[in-house]
Amino acid sequence: MEPETKLSQLKTLLNEVFDLYNVIGLLKWDQQVNQPPGGTHNRSHQLSTLYRLYHSRYTSDEIGQLLEDLGLYAAQLEPDSDDARLIKVTTRRYKKLTRLPADLVAEIAQVVGEAHLAWEQARPAADFARFRPYLERIVELRRRQAELFGPNDHIYDSLLDEYEPGLKTADVQAIFSALRTQQVALIQAIKERPQVDDHFLHQHYDEKSQWDFGVEVISRFGYDWNCGRQDKSSHPFTETIGPGDVRITTRFLKDYAASALFSTMHECGHALYEQGIDPGLSRSPLGSGASLAVHESQSRLYENLVGRSHDFWLHYYPRLQAYFSTQLGNVDLETFYRGINKVEPSLIRVEADEATYNLHIMLRLELEIALIEGSIAVKDLPEAWNSRMQEYLGLTPPNDGQGVLQDIHWSSGDIGYFSTYALGNLISAQLWECVNQDIPDLPDQIRRGEFTGLTSWMKEKVHRHGAKFEPQELVQRITGSKIDPAPYLRYLNAKYGEIYGL
Amino acid sequence: MEPETKLSQLKTLLNEVFDLYNVIGLLKWDQQVNQPPGGTHNRSHQLSTLYRLYHSRYTSDEIGQLLEDLGLYAAQLEPDSDDARLIKVTTRRYKKLTRLPADLVAEIAQVVGEAHLAWEQARPAADFARFRPYLERIVELRRRQAELFGPNDHIYDSLLDEYEPGLKTADVQAIFSALRTQQVALIQAIKERPQVDDHFLHQHYDEKSQWDFGVEVISRFGYDWNCGRQDKSSHPFTETIGPGDVRITTRFLKDYAASALFSTMHECGHALYEQGIDPGLSRSPLGSGASLAVHESQSRLYENLVGRSHDFWLHYYPRLQAYFSTQLGNVDLETFYRGINKVEPSLIRVEADEATYNLHIMLRLELEIALIEGSIAVKDLPEAWNSRMQEYLGLTPPNDGQGVLQDIHWSSGDIGYFSTYALGNLISAQLWECVNQDIPDLPDQIRRGEFTGLTSWMKEKVHRHGAKFEPQELVQRITGSKIDPAPYLRYLNAKYGEIYGL
Repeated sequence: MEPETKLSQLKTLLNEVFDLYNVIGLLKWDQQVNQPPGGTHNRSHQLSTLYRLYHSRYTSDEIGQLLEDLGLYAAQLEPDSDDARLIKVTTRRYKKLTRLPADLVAEIAQVVGEAHLAWEQARPAADFARFRPYLERIVELRRRQAELFGPNDHIYDSLLDEYEPGLKTADVQAIFSALRTQQVALIQAIKERPQVDDHFLHQHYDEKSQWDFGVEVISRFGYDWNCGRQDKSSHPFTETIGPGDVRITTRFLKDYAASALFSTMHECGHALYEQGIDPGLSRSPLGSGASLAVHESQSRLYENLVGRSHDFWLHYYPRLQAYFSTQLGNVDLETFYRGINKVEPSLIRVEADEATYNLHIMLRLELEIALIEGSIAVKDLPEAWNSRMQEYLGLTPPNDGQGVLQDIHWSSGDIGYFSTYALGNLISAQLWECVNQDIPDLPDQIRRGEFTGLTSWMKEKVHRHGAKFEPQELVQRITGSKIDPAPYLRYLNAKYGEIYGL
Repeated sequence: MEPETKLSQLKTLLNEVFDLYNVIGLLKWDQQVNQPPGGTHNRSHQLSTLYRLYHSRYTSDEIGQLLEDLGLYAAQLEPDSDDARLIKVTTRRYKKLTRLPADLVAEIAQVVGEAHLAWEQARPAADFARFRPYLERIVELRRRQAELFGPNDHIYDSLLDEYEPGLKTADVQAIFSALRTQQVALIQAIKERPQVDDHFLHQHYDEKSQWDFGVEVISRFGYDWNCGRQDKSSHPFTETIGPGDVRITTRFLKDYAASALFSTMHECGHALYEQGIDPGLSRSPLGSGASLAVHESQSRLYENLVGRSHDFWLHYYPRLQAYFSTQLGNVDLETFYRGINKVEPSLIRVEADEATYNLHIMLRLELEIALIEGSIAVKDLPEAWNSRMQEYLGLTPPNDGQGVLQDIHWSSGDIGYFSTYALGNLISAQLWECVNQDIPDLPDQIRRGEFTGLTSWMKEKVHRHGAKFEPQELVQRITGSKIDPAPYLRYLNAKYGEIYGL
């Protein structure tokens, strides 16, 4: 059989696998947005059945044989072509997936289910002891998984690789080492300056007007409503149901306007990425983002580099004031701009500002690596958490609910995930420097509320490639260097230097 | 291996098959309710992938072997037990499904896709010629399918059996023969009487108030909002996403209040059935209604026997007037009751009243049977349609768009479906006579807006059994006779005799 025929067979099989993947996306979206309470139990069955089918079709002998047969053919193709990359990325993923025995996959799923229930009780009760045995099991299972994936330079590598293909633990550690002392120093310097007032954000803002303003903004960003929709959910997220159907959600916090505003822009950033992927890559392993960090670079770029910038509000603040004349009529642009950029070390990651956010991440990454290495025991986690919080942010949680128990990730079995948030911030600043070099009048465009240039650039450089390139490779192609903390530090120092008069 | 172990294996495999079936339900629900236009194309891929998996898992050798091995065991079980019925119903379905070659299934899917597109253009253009070649293909493929399913007493049997397991063409013909002349005579008699005024229904009714009133009514009927939700869609429907998640939709027609009102009650009837099925039957072939006709008996019962009854409005009309004082403040109960029960022969099935509805169905059934038998050619269909319309309803469509092209069913490949609507009407009246015998004060309960007795009776007699019994068997168990047109004729004659003074 000709290799072209085999490639076409492979694509057909992958189409089926990724149809299942997208249907899982719909099941999850529906679960958060529409599902009545009575459907909860059965939705777990459906998800479990679909995941099992997805996994078993992805790891089928048929796909394995085709990939093996296509190895030589792929080597003759132009290395950056869609077909060469499809074979490369699929082969890499196939090898990882087939190293996991089905009973380990099933055991992880079961433990995660129980762990999540335990965490849901432990967090409000601030009772780490209740969660501890489950976390111990999860760490043990993920360690076993990492060993099966191995060998690697570091046992944590293959867990990180699940979210950031190709990235090494040592890379992330080097990046974060360069970042840590400087971010801590910045926060210290800010602390000694007069603080910013943002009380005007903490009052009642009409939900419908918040919704309308958000829609106005992200429509200008380029969100394609013909290929998506926005709903409400308790936690904002973006879900790709398939090419041509990328949905976002938002939420409205009582008496805090900034939540919906910036989360809408954030999710729009994710959605622009998914909507911008070349349709020819859809229904395949190449049809999603390059990695979680690259994804986060897009959400953070639209949320922060654009959405919390002075240029942006020069155009949009009068519009926002028109929606909320009672709340903002007497608040001038400068006060508003400083308010939405207030820096304040806090206990909770999801409420953290741009300057402190990465420190929350570093803390988690260090603890995760230590857990997987075995250099720290789960029982010692709360203490290790609290001492690092004091060191990095000068705070100590009053209890574990506001400390080590705050995040859902570990209870969901996600170990290796956290660093992608901080890496996303770094990449966003790298891309920001590049796009501003390529489009010298970008600030002017933004001051006019125009984003076509920005979003087209992102589509051309980032979005359309889907998962063809690994994150480091993609960042290198665009910016000329790998993931690098320097641009983000420059950005933070310039922005907060100006706001806080450092 | 013990038969109990094999049965348990069978159940596990069926759980997976019916998880897929319910996920298909979600894909279809989402398509009508939420999906943005850009997702249309890909949704077809997803549905096609899921249907293919559903079919291939259902017809797997593994299930076939287990069913064969369990044959003797099933014969020793109590014949009406869940397990005995599960094996029986699954075996029956398995045998039918495995008789269809995969390439015929694929060909039908493809032709149906094209036929539907052609019909969507042909109907508004009233251009039967454009649809004709596709309908010819569909008839040919369904005939081939019927032959593969055979042998049967009549070639149409196995198509009908897809919707009404066990029912024979001869049964339906006998039932409809008994019905036809009497329904035609009734309509003739009504025609000669003074006509009813319903102009007050044809004005603007606030959508939100219609929604609220409908919610109020179906909540009293017993619709469980914890296990369902209502949305808007262009055609009302009920979709089961899984046990504990049965969703309904409604629509609002501009300037015609009766549409949303009665379609909401109608879909609630379907939903009560699905919500009332014994949870122990879920995720299996027994976890849905006995047949489309039995399903329709529930929707028509709540819509018509209850919802268009004088007793019902004795309680609810003051409530409705409170919602719509401008429109109904000066319309008395009698006038309203007569208005919502106005009989008027019309061209379009979905707009037909209770007295004329069945005649639309008989016409379609006769033509379908003739098409499959080969006693009429597709090219002669418009003429045959129009001459029967004249004979049964005294009307001739001005064009094929309002005639032979009006329904979606044939373009979707559904042949064998139509009679279930009329059979549902007949069964609803049979059940109505029974429940009124068992609960002598049911009319009083309804006049007080109480439906707990009614819905509990339906749940006990009909809903909880799911698909354990074939429709004729179920109707016989409950009413003491098979599907019988006499109660429906008694009902029509009594009701319309009173309204029209016959």
